[in-house]
Amino acid sequence: MLDLPAAGPLKWLDVIETPAVLIDLDVVEANILRCQAHCSELGFKMRPHIKTHKLPMLAHAQLAAGAIGVTTQKLGEAEIMADAGIEDILISYNIVGPAKLQQLRRLASRAKVTVVADNATVVSGLSDVFANSPSPLDVLVECDTGMGRCGVLTPQAAVAMALEVAASPGLRFAGLMTYPAPKQGNSAAGWLEEAADLLHAAGLKSDIVSSGGTPDLYAMNRHDSVTEYRPGSYIYNDRSLIDIGACKASDCALTVVATVISSPEPNRTIIDAGTKVLTSDLFGMQHYGTIPEHPDFAIVSLNEEHGRIECPSGNAPAVGELLRIIPNHACVVSNMVDYVHLVRGDNYVRAELVAARGKVE
Amino acid sequence: MLDLPAAGPLKWLDVIETPAVLIDLDVVEANILRCQAHCSELGFKMRPHIKTHKLPMLAHAQLAAGAIGVTTQKLGEAEIMADAGIEDILISYNIVGPAKLQQLRRLASRAKVTVVADNATVVSGLSDVFANSPSPLDVLVECDTGMGRCGVLTPQAAVAMALEVAASPGLRFAGLMTYPAPKQGNSAAGWLEEAADLLHAAGLKSDIVSSGGTPDLYAMNRHDSVTEYRPGSYIYNDRSLIDIGACKASDCALTVVATVISSPEPNRTIIDAGTKVLTSDLFGMQHYGTIPEHPDFAIVSLNEEHGRIECPSGNAPAVGELLRIIPNHACVVSNMVDYVHLVRGDNYVRAELVAARGKVE
Repeated sequence: MLDLPAAGPLKWLDVIETPAVLIDLDVVEANILRCQAHCSELGFKMRPHIKTHKLPMLAHAQLAAGAIGVTTQKLGEAEIMADAGIEDILISYNIVGPAKLQQLRRLASRAKVTVVADNATVVSGLSDVFANSPSPLDVLVECDTGMGRCGVLTPQAAVAMALEVAASPGLRFAGLMTYPAPKQGNSAAGWLEEAADLLHAAGLKSDIVSSGGTPDLYAMNRHDSVTEYRPGSYIYNDRSLIDIGACKASDCALTVVATVISSPEPNRTIIDAGTKVLTSDLFGMQHYGTIPEHPDFAIVSLNEEHGRIECPSGNAPAVGELLRIIPNHACVVSNMVDYVHLVRGDNYVRAELVAARGKVE
Repeated sequence: MLDLPAAGPLKWLDVIETPAVLIDLDVVEANILRCQAHCSELGFKMRPHIKTHKLPMLAHAQLAAGAIGVTTQKLGEAEIMADAGIEDILISYNIVGPAKLQQLRRLASRAKVTVVADNATVVSGLSDVFANSPSPLDVLVECDTGMGRCGVLTPQAAVAMALEVAASPGLRFAGLMTYPAPKQGNSAAGWLEEAADLLHAAGLKSDIVSSGGTPDLYAMNRHDSVTEYRPGSYIYNDRSLIDIGACKASDCALTVVATVISSPEPNRTIIDAGTKVLTSDLFGMQHYGTIPEHPDFAIVSLNEEHGRIECPSGNAPAVGELLRIIPNHACVVSNMVDYVHLVRGDNYVRAELVAARGKVE
């Protein structure tokens, strides 16, 4: 149904060179279907964030499962998705500067693009470029409902920004965006409800209230204020999501396979994966990933190309053995490698270019 | 003298899109020349580690200044250097597994390659592949003189491993390698001196004693036990080296230029550079880089595409302003981008592909 490739005859163990990033498509499919069903049940439209996988083929699988479009963080990622035939893209990021605005205008001529804004400079920049556009650009007002990153600070400021968008040539106010999720009964939910009331009073229609974040998704209930959801990590999952109880190790589709290159002492082993694959992301946890087959092993420190593992039972594996790691944060691992290896269980499928890797602009 | 390109007529400010990684060649040249002069004065041969820049053109500049060869961590990096005509390469890493060993054999047919080993599995793997080679492979024994990563644990073990190398068909024992540096009078220096004595007593000749690490380089004195040095970071420098007093901000050749995309409050600004450029590396410091033009600004947290800056004086810059950041760790930033922008002061030189980026295998 999701049109993902089938298993091939080879075992991945006989194909890969380490360090290697494996994506298990059996797990990916289950994650996509489960999350889509959950969003449908809640009445949320799905607009998955592609930053986790950065793969057009998985964006297409998410759409095939029922997503209405995708989310990207950067223009360069959106261009890769448009190149792959994705037609509905939210760029959840303030676009700033003349070159990027022209790039956005060109992109909007070949895909349905929605952007966000949280300040007047961004709004006027967008308007300058889209004023003479055949169709207006949809703009969501980014709301800070507690994250403390981008976003207008109050429901009143959201309405003021919405009015500014609505009054700007070439732009259409399309709704609100926030991150992370306004769970029912929490202050973020109250924030959005107040904004909705104020928008209504100001005569503005908010078609979209877009929220996101895998960690909160399965804790959410049907919530009137949210119309669409932008989860990213759910497609792969990772140790940070196991840690908060949002998934199990068997739900983790992305793993890193590393080779033991030295075991200098019975309680210490060194692998060929360091920050250049696993990254330094800790997400408030201890250690740099978990090894399900050796739950007592602790990846205590990383250099760029080395990972140092403590083996408290003195059972450091032999040089040449492979260890399979669930990383702390799957999204950033996708960004470290030129290609990932698609697998199904023990079987190899093929290598896949991470087309939207490194698109920081 | 170093044959690096001259400044062009344009200002980089008019060329780059952010986030952008800038390399100031004026600073690079000064860093190369200063470090080479220091190593020459100490009597150390220079074998710079290319992991910092990953650019063949800068490897050639290091050779032009007097380096005897380069160091890489991975085979893939070494291949890129050989492709660019670099003829003498130390891969300071245990090579494990049949595919990588064959790759090494092929590489050794077109460049003078030296590798390291710290265990019998690696030695026998190398010997299996080089036994029928027309010329033996030079192997250094990696010594753990305090790092607790790879490396044999004692001078006695170094001699045993050296004897094993010397007795293995296709291999030549060429010396010892350690990291970080054995500064005169410290226990690492004593370690190496003891190993040298034991090697002599065992009838083995240790041509090379290779040490490395920019942090220690300027603290070292002429030291009989060390014959060559493998500094990496010195060519760019970074905040971690400022922090320990090894350089000044003006010695930092690599900077990240970011754009302010939102200043939601007078004391908070958000930039378009996050972990996908600056990485999560803290190196024991607080915050994710320093901004020389705004020494009071603190880059307090990063997401993948956002950096959050606290501006304690309430002087958050306007949306669209550029901020120039010295990152905590230059080497890892090089690995995050497909190309860097070469500049000289305010002038643009050209964009340069980071040819050895992402070579984790």
